Amino acid sequence: MPTETLIGIVDVNELDCDDFVSIFGNVVEHCSLCAAAVWQHRPFRDVYHIHKLVCDFLDNLPEDGQQGVLRLHPDLAGKVAGALTAESQNEQKAAGIDNLTRDEKEAMQERNTKYREKFGFPFVICARKNKKDAILKGLKSRLENDVTAEVTNGVEQVKQIALLRLLGIVRE
Amino acid sequence: MPTETLIGIVDVNELDCDDFVSIFGNVVEHCSLCAAAVWQHRPFRDVYHIHKLVCDFLDNLPEDGQQGVLRLHPDLAGKVAGALTAESQNEQKAAGIDNLTRDEKEAMQERNTKYREKFGFPFVICARKNKKDAILKGLKSRLENDVTAEVTNGVEQVKQIALLRLLGIVRE
Repeated sequence: MPTETLIGIVDVNELDCDDFVSIFGNVVEHCSLCAAAVWQHRPFRDVYHIHKLVCDFLDNLPEDGQQGVLRLHPDLAGKVAGALTAESQNEQKAAGIDNLTRDEKEAMQERNTKYREKFGFPFVICARKNKKDAILKGLKSRLENDVTAEVTNGVEQVKQIALLRLLGIVRE
Repeated sequence: MPTETLIGIVDVNELDCDDFVSIFGNVVEHCSLCAAAVWQHRPFRDVYHIHKLVCDFLDNLPEDGQQGVLRLHPDLAGKVAGALTAESQNEQKAAGIDNLTRDEKEAMQERNTKYREKFGFPFVICARKNKKDAILKGLKSRLENDVTAEVTNGVEQVKQIALLRLLGIVRE
């Protein structure tokens, strides 16, 4: 990923598990277990069926597993571009995070640090659906929540990220 | 991994999540989510405490997640050494799998293929605790089981593999 041409669902259903994991293993960031679990439920009807199974996988994890999923995500603006997965790099670029002013970058890193210290996992947001101003505001307001709410919010964002990544792999 | 010198538990407890995942991310083969989940439960008392948490993580996965864990493992004798993780390569070598006769290799690959066709995941066995003859016998007898029994057996082997990998990282 990202693949250059989209794959049809018929071809997706013919993939063996190793190939499926190598193509879909980062639909949830760094979480190849999700792809290896979802593969079991072939044949998939369409890309939304795969997404539903990804969501089920996330929902059925115990809470430390859900927090683990969040911890496999990078801090926004916390890594140089080369250290990110290709998917994260593209998504952060789409949100304008590769192009912050010095003040914005400082504000984002400060709030990220506070967030991680409070919750024990990084702030996760679907960067392709939020521009940098919305992300900075979201960081500020979500810092006020408790950990249960932020696990829920973070997992919800992971689901949104996963759908956009899936739509970048499978033809609708 | 494998690390050259063992780490004391005090130092393990000081690792941030990224460093913990980079050191412990393959205690369960290709399953960094396990390490990212377990990290949450610091401070660890000792290496056996970490192992208990790895076992809890595996036990608390839904069945497709447990099968997914098994699917992240390689076929025994199915890959050239260079395509294996360093841990798997060492473990297969310890069992003598790098040194099969042509007949043994054919028997192992044939039974592996049957096993994977029947269950939808590869045959997983702790290679450091079983020499090649025991593995060939185990493959034959475990092929007779049903899928529920083999998920249980496979996960039990993953736990044994994880303990030996942990003891290769953390000082007792």
